[in-house]
Amino acid sequence: MEDHVTPRRVVIVGGGFAGLFAARALHRAPVAVTLIDRRAHHLFQPLLYQCAAGILSEGQIAQPLRAVLRRHANVRCLLADATDVDVTGRAVHAQRPEGSSIVVPYDDLIVAVGMRQSYFGHDEFAAHAPGMKTLDDALEIRRRIYRAFEMAESATDAGDRRHWLTFALVGGGPTGVELAGQIREIAANTLDREFRTIDPREVRVLLFEGSDKVLAPFGDRLARRAARPLDDLGVELHLGTRVTDLNDQGLTVKDRDGAAVRHRARTVLWTAGVEAPPIAAVLARTTGAQQDRAGRIAVEADLTLPGHPEIRVVGDMMSLNRLPGLAEVAMQSGAYAGRAVRHAVEGRTKKPKPFKYVDLGSAAYISRGRAVVKAGPLHLSGFTGWLTWLFIHIAFLTGFRSRLGAVLSWSIVFASGARRERAFTLPGAGPVGRRHAVTAAPREP
Amino acid sequence: MEDHVTPRRVVIVGGGFAGLFAARALHRAPVAVTLIDRRAHHLFQPLLYQCAAGILSEGQIAQPLRAVLRRHANVRCLLADATDVDVTGRAVHAQRPEGSSIVVPYDDLIVAVGMRQSYFGHDEFAAHAPGMKTLDDALEIRRRIYRAFEMAESATDAGDRRHWLTFALVGGGPTGVELAGQIREIAANTLDREFRTIDPREVRVLLFEGSDKVLAPFGDRLARRAARPLDDLGVELHLGTRVTDLNDQGLTVKDRDGAAVRHRARTVLWTAGVEAPPIAAVLARTTGAQQDRAGRIAVEADLTLPGHPEIRVVGDMMSLNRLPGLAEVAMQSGAYAGRAVRHAVEGRTKKPKPFKYVDLGSAAYISRGRAVVKAGPLHLSGFTGWLTWLFIHIAFLTGFRSRLGAVLSWSIVFASGARRERAFTLPGAGPVGRRHAVTAAPREP
Repeated sequence: MEDHVTPRRVVIVGGGFAGLFAARALHRAPVAVTLIDRRAHHLFQPLLYQCAAGILSEGQIAQPLRAVLRRHANVRCLLADATDVDVTGRAVHAQRPEGSSIVVPYDDLIVAVGMRQSYFGHDEFAAHAPGMKTLDDALEIRRRIYRAFEMAESATDAGDRRHWLTFALVGGGPTGVELAGQIREIAANTLDREFRTIDPREVRVLLFEGSDKVLAPFGDRLARRAARPLDDLGVELHLGTRVTDLNDQGLTVKDRDGAAVRHRARTVLWTAGVEAPPIAAVLARTTGAQQDRAGRIAVEADLTLPGHPEIRVVGDMMSLNRLPGLAEVAMQSGAYAGRAVRHAVEGRTKKPKPFKYVDLGSAAYISRGRAVVKAGPLHLSGFTGWLTWLFIHIAFLTGFRSRLGAVLSWSIVFASGARRERAFTLPGAGPVGRRHAVTAAPREP
Repeated sequence: MEDHVTPRRVVIVGGGFAGLFAARALHRAPVAVTLIDRRAHHLFQPLLYQCAAGILSEGQIAQPLRAVLRRHANVRCLLADATDVDVTGRAVHAQRPEGSSIVVPYDDLIVAVGMRQSYFGHDEFAAHAPGMKTLDDALEIRRRIYRAFEMAESATDAGDRRHWLTFALVGGGPTGVELAGQIREIAANTLDREFRTIDPREVRVLLFEGSDKVLAPFGDRLARRAARPLDDLGVELHLGTRVTDLNDQGLTVKDRDGAAVRHRARTVLWTAGVEAPPIAAVLARTTGAQQDRAGRIAVEADLTLPGHPEIRVVGDMMSLNRLPGLAEVAMQSGAYAGRAVRHAVEGRTKKPKPFKYVDLGSAAYISRGRAVVKAGPLHLSGFTGWLTWLFIHIAFLTGFRSRLGAVLSWSIVFASGARRERAFTLPGAGPVGRRHAVTAAPREP
């Protein structure tokens, strides 16, 4: 059946860890790979909070996909938003940034789109509480954090000032914990000598978590150990709480006893949950694959969809053995899918071994000199954890150049508290925005 | 009259070179300075094009004003948009980012707001052809440049491809020339091995200038010398042209003979002119000061307004002896105004000497290894000019940390062509944007 003149067409949707590792696993394979992403860059997601916190620049955590894959001559990168999959006709439908659509046929499809922020049915929260999944999110959070200190400084009464100095974070996973630590560190070590009216150390950071502990995936012992430095930092933990209402003035939570409590905060950030993007529903509908509650697609042991050996789902959106949504799972499943396609092309007939995730461990940064790391039997916290965190992140940052810059930025922030990337823009303040905004109406923050 | 218990209140509007140097000149003076800016950062404007071109990050060219002025205990920074001046009541009216207004009384006012991009009465051009005055502008231009290459790569016909690979720049001043050089360098040295369908070196860069030469302020000889490397780079110069129409498909220009010519280009950038922001008209109306054609305020020899010794206008928006809108003029006039206030506070009764601009020279970067520099009798171009440019910019970049990072970024781009800050975001592609955009309608680019 196969035409040996036209190479087999492999389409990878998504250029995150899973998609990138799938493409890399196909290096020099006789296939024509098209990597579709609605952004032109690969994002080093685990350090996104450092971009939000003003330590790293966009370029230090986001590298152009086509630069990363420069030496992969069989990969073509396509900047487009995959909106639909024609399972029968074997083609991905995508929309280019200016709105025109494009159809990309495939012989093998690897879906690696990841998950997006979930507001648990309250999408209206999104406008008031940005999530932490994209570069846009990080820049928005950076803007809100540093703007809040500016607003507090020029506040005319004490209540207003306290309101701006209160930060509420929803979600006690690694990202929420890391952001909470960062805000306290910004206040204590970066801004401490810069303000005249406020003492930035007066900031309050409230962390809301639905379960009974932060960093639950790290296990009981590390979760308890992480709570202590958070407490030392002055982060106020609100465990067992569920957000019922949220606006730009604060949020209302229900605690375990069902009592509703209102917390005033001018900055609310959301890292609480994830959900599958719409393409998951498309796949489920057209292939009959099952979705879990968050919309993840259930895959076979070889990561294919039932009855569709030509479609593989990898990374965060894959549902298999309750594997967590970690970078490491994404990398390993992506590489597995790429290898499987390579083996098929090479004509290996042996049935592939099922995908098996090798847990290399996970790490979360709490504050300067403090991190928790879990790697097999190894449970590290405090300074040892932090050194391990540092080593892992330097080793895994894609590309020598970003690594060098990141190490430089880290040395500076660890030594002096100074953050190099604090610049933020205010939408509508530019000359174009001003021209269009003729009246002096209050702007949306 | 003066109350020696309350220090004299000095309000500086604008934290560019002029405002910053005015604040610095008041170091340790017994005054209470309020520096009002609608952005929280000081922007190193001469390198803004390098941020647009993906060489430098925002943090490398924009530093928080309150970080720069950390040791100036008498300066308070206020993030607000100065909208009005009450000359009689001696107070500045400003709007904070969330829309509330604030009134700041002054004894001395230093207006250092600078100029904004002018579209010569065609404000509707702004949406299609971003200018180059703010960080937002630079990020928008970065997005458009790199997105254009991505769009060309996925174009389905040759005409569309050429259309995306054509860049039109309006304005042949330093910024226009620098951007033109950057786009050709990005194509030839950065992206040359990254694309599969297009050859990025096929890009056309058209530079439109109303007068009969580029870089006119550098004088005839250097302007001629600058034209040659631009030509070598493949930049197509269209001198003596005036833009009469412009949209996202290209522009129409009238040449010297009055003939209208249409040029197709998917990316149009605008660096052609400047105009005073609205606060200039407010000042002119209430003080009777004269404005020149671009809206600059005519000042006395000591930079005060006629009949208003308590108001000084400095920097780009000051009209005095046809001084050019250069960083150096802004620094010197700002420092002069700061010193004048200091002398008055210190009780010096001698009439101050008129402001005298000392021309330390100017420089424009054309491409790797090529720049023009004019400093008094010194007219440098080519590699010597470039070395001088490098030295000047390393010496003047505010702050040791940005300098170190910039030198690192420059070393990399000069040696390998790699640009560290190419990441760009696409508005509306984030999960929030997606949720709000229910239909798959074509997005505004």
